[in-house]
Amino acid sequence: MTDNNSFGILGGDGRQIALAESIASDGYAVRAYGFDSVSFSEGVRKSGLRETVEHSENIILPLPVTSDGTHLKMDCCDDRVVLDDAFAELLRGKLVFGGRMGKLYRTSELWDSIDACDYCAREEFAVRNAVPTAEGALETAMHEYPGTVHGSRCLVAGFGRLGKTIAWMLRGIGADVAVSARTQPDLAWIESFGYRALPADRLGEGTFDLVFNTVPYPIFSRPVMRRMKCRPLLIDLASPPGGVDPEAAEETGVRVIRAPSLPGKVAPKAAGEIIKRTIYAMMEE
Amino acid sequence: MTDNNSFGILGGDGRQIALAESIASDGYAVRAYGFDSVSFSEGVRKSGLRETVEHSENIILPLPVTSDGTHLKMDCCDDRVVLDDAFAELLRGKLVFGGRMGKLYRTSELWDSIDACDYCAREEFAVRNAVPTAEGALETAMHEYPGTVHGSRCLVAGFGRLGKTIAWMLRGIGADVAVSARTQPDLAWIESFGYRALPADRLGEGTFDLVFNTVPYPIFSRPVMRRMKCRPLLIDLASPPGGVDPEAAEETGVRVIRAPSLPGKVAPKAAGEIIKRTIYAMMEE
Amino acid sequence: MTDNNSFGILGGDGRQIALAESIASDGYAVRAYGFDSVSFSEGVRKSGLRETVEHSENIILPLPVTSDGTHLKMDCCDDRVVLDDAFAELLRGKLVFGGRMGKLYRTSELWDSIDACDYCAREEFAVRNAVPTAEGALETAMHEYPGTVHGSRCLVAGFGRLGKTIAWMLRGIGADVAVSARTQPDLAWIESFGYRALPADRLGEGTFDLVFNTVPYPIFSRPVMRRMKCRPLLIDLASPPGGVDPEAAEETGVRVIRAPSLPGKVAPKAAGEIIKRTIYAMMEE
Amino acid sequence: MTDNNSFGILGGDGRQIALAESIASDGYAVRAYGFDSVSFSEGVRKSGLRETVEHSENIILPLPVTSDGTHLKMDCCDDRVVLDDAFAELLRGKLVFGGRMGKLYRTSELWDSIDACDYCAREEFAVRNAVPTAEGALETAMHEYPGTVHGSRCLVAGFGRLGKTIAWMLRGIGADVAVSARTQPDLAWIESFGYRALPADRLGEGTFDLVFNTVPYPIFSRPVMRRMKCRPLLIDLASPPGGVDPEAAEETGVRVIRAPSLPGKVAPKAAGEIIKRTIYAMMEE
Repeated sequence: MTDNNSFGILGGDGRQIALAESIASDGYAVRAYGFDSVSFSEGVRKSGLRETVEHSENIILPLPVTSDGTHLKMDCCDDRVVLDDAFAELLRGKLVFGGRMGKLYRTSELWDSIDACDYCAREEFAVRNAVPTAEGALETAMHEYPGTVHGSRCLVAGFGRLGKTIAWMLRGIGADVAVSARTQPDLAWIESFGYRALPADRLGEGTFDLVFNTVPYPIFSRPVMRRMKCRPLLIDLASPPGGVDPEAAEETGVRVIRAPSLPGKVAPKAAGEIIKRTIYAMMEE
Repeated sequence: MTDNNSFGILGGDGRQIALAESIASDGYAVRAYGFDSVSFSEGVRKSGLRETVEHSENIILPLPVTSDGTHLKMDCCDDRVVLDDAFAELLRGKLVFGGRMGKLYRTSELWDSIDACDYCAREEFAVRNAVPTAEGALETAMHEYPGTVHGSRCLVAGFGRLGKTIAWMLRGIGADVAVSARTQPDLAWIESFGYRALPADRLGEGTFDLVFNTVPYPIFSRPVMRRMKCRPLLIDLASPPGGVDPEAAEETGVRVIRAPSLPGKVAPKAAGEIIKRTIYAMMEE
Repeated sequence: MTDNNSFGILGGDGRQIALAESIASDGYAVRAYGFDSVSFSEGVRKSGLRETVEHSENIILPLPVTSDGTHLKMDCCDDRVVLDDAFAELLRGKLVFGGRMGKLYRTSELWDSIDACDYCAREEFAVRNAVPTAEGALETAMHEYPGTVHGSRCLVAGFGRLGKTIAWMLRGIGADVAVSARTQPDLAWIESFGYRALPADRLGEGTFDLVFNTVPYPIFSRPVMRRMKCRPLLIDLASPPGGVDPEAAEETGVRVIRAPSLPGKVAPKAAGEIIKRTIYAMMEE
Repeated sequence: MTDNNSFGILGGDGRQIALAESIASDGYAVRAYGFDSVSFSEGVRKSGLRETVEHSENIILPLPVTSDGTHLKMDCCDDRVVLDDAFAELLRGKLVFGGRMGKLYRTSELWDSIDACDYCAREEFAVRNAVPTAEGALETAMHEYPGTVHGSRCLVAGFGRLGKTIAWMLRGIGADVAVSARTQPDLAWIESFGYRALPADRLGEGTFDLVFNTVPYPIFSRPVMRRMKCRPLLIDLASPPGGVDPEAAEETGVRVIRAPSLPGKVAPKAAGEIIKRTIYAMMEE
């Protein structure tokens, strides 16, 4: 009853739609449940929950699998699927992929005996996701900043995955790029890539038109904000509560745009592609 | 009565606002008329039309000076200023700068004896304006294309000012860039800058996710569109009527976004800065 | 007796060797005369002068065709071929390509009735040649400058074909790049490509580690050299007599390396490829 | 007798010379021993060994401190300084910096009680050194490859410090860059930076003109070399014994240039600057 190399997509949003289409275009059999309002191309077959699972060797759950910890995340369908022993029982024997699986595992002890993998936990998933996130940041900057990003003085705070990617793109379109970091090796790398290096303890110095924060704790504190002589547009990409003290921002008149990383919204096709590539790599291992 | 090195800004839109502020920040006396709804910083003094002109050595008219050929373009004010002999008489003896002055010159014979310059007619103005236009094109692509521009296969049609600038930015954020052009020297330059060259007579070949047209005549004709095996998102940056045959686009299912170059909307501060630099260069000559 | 689409290569240096091999690898019949000391691969047939010409539809002469105005340039052979009526007569009826044909045309009136083209006169030839020349300049800089070019402060004097290409490569390996030019449009382009612009009348200002001159007249005059506060390494790429006043250089202690453009020496394979592509384009027209 | 913030440079090569000059130009007192054949500028005072040490708070030893394990490395002087208890005793109480200190520590037990730091052991030292090494690799490629690096198909094997830096520079001058790596995150990063990714287990596939090996074990084994259909120029930057099986190279006719990383030879000024910056950072901690 199960097709070899067949995939069942259960629920999710635009990323799962793109994912289903992309897997189908690779020639695999794809069934999808939870997309009542969606018109797929020929290669993706809409089915009921049970039918989708039964015909598929590999099951792909959304990112995140669940928002409330109780129901499967399904943005394109009015059904509600409860995550419980019955759901786990249904998926037993399948190879299950999903994003942020922690809450799911807590819904049934059966998960201990199911072959399940979290694609979000993979380093390369995070690396690849920095690209759509950085593009989203750039688009936000272009949209909100009244000058051009080209020729503007930009500071990227943090040199992790996202900071590295944003800095690279900013230089690529002709911005004047500085990057702040804490460690000496990071400061050395920053210069190797052609940016100016700002040691983190000197944050607040320099004159910038645009600041992109990628650091997930409040480094733009009151003392730092007060030290700043410029009034840049500050795009905060860190997850809540973000990297900026909101009172200090208000006090100093710095405009802050919160844009926590949402590659799914900005580029669902890219995000779906990234999930697919991560799953394929996991299957090969 | 006239201040030396003083500037009077008459009418316009966000670009003129940015222009006024930028000139004032250089330390010159600036008066502005036609901005009832605008709050300027301290350096820019709002005045009536006559007063603004009388106190200013240099007068800056908007871009374009007039849309209807009869009235001064004023987007931030309910007044209407008629362009006639009286208006020309008022400006006599001043150094007058404006954008697209042709229609203005036709409103009065007095213009023959006024020292007037068109900043739009300057080559460097057009070169600099390609930057905000290219950024606007990039922003549009990021917004409308469901994948990332990074890693996408892009074709830039035309290697003039705008094509050169877009191609450079696209490569800078990691797109795979091809550029089409007609002449052998342009095709050589395209390869020198690291892009793939597509001779214009082979337009329609190749597979692209995004196409940016900068050529102001319908090169994306029915035969070309039919030859295309891909269904890219086509962003048409050429002035009306644009470079795409709309019926052929509909027939072949290619999605076209019309985005004729509007740096003023996308980046008024940058556009104002460009006008200022052009005027300064003209004054030095 | 003549093969269709056959090529006869007469004399020259490493570029002609590479050219012969490259045309042969495209599948055409190739004969070569003037390469006694060279071992070609199978596709290139060494023959005598007369035989080579008689069997070939297209004849390719070296770059330059002649150094002394009297003999064919042949670096890989001890023969001497006199350029006279007999030589012209031999080539009558052929399609003849060569580099810098002026002196050849003066050797016989028969040239008026021969179908001959100068590949050096083509704009795209010059554009493409800027690439090996720029690489040669970069290699020289890396070899001679005791620091790294990455991170060094570079000035490129002139924004013609060579200046554009060098500046682009310097930025690409992480140098801090300024470019000097005379016209406002060029200065605008310089900023668009992410370099700092230095108006030519301010030459001598600023601090640089490396200067690349591409301007073919002595812009680095005594007054300019005296104004310089830095002592850069100056690489002069202009044709003799070059762009630097040698006495001024000695007086101010600036080290000058003369490296007039010699793509043939640096990258014969690339140079041969460029000649081939230019000839192919001419044949298609 | 000891000046505050004074530096004594003992022995070494061109890097120590550049280092001495650079520290002196920062305004510190600098004495140097072991440079009989060198003319320093005014700020560096040549002294005897004992005098140099006694007057200096900080002592800088060369890189490596010793080649033979017995004598201090001194390339610019005929003296021989034995590394023994007496030498260690002389340096007691000083802050001592040196490169690859292991062999020195074994020359005397006194070193256990001396405040000594190895600048080579610092991550940022290695990061910064990748820049001159990568430039040296580029220069070698430009010198040895008969085509231009621009437009050539390059493979960088390995995505460590050196691989990252070379790939970045190659793309910057317009090469077509692929990078091989083993891990999924590295392969993801490679694509993020705009290169093509080649999984290490597919080494030998693809067509390349130039290959830069940075991996310090023989990944270019006989099976890999036999699988290669192209005959690239292979520049091996790995430390001895390098990453290429020499017999396989000979068998397959691939030309290999051994160029183990020698930033000191290529760019002594840059290398000295890097040592200085590393020492300054260590002193601040």
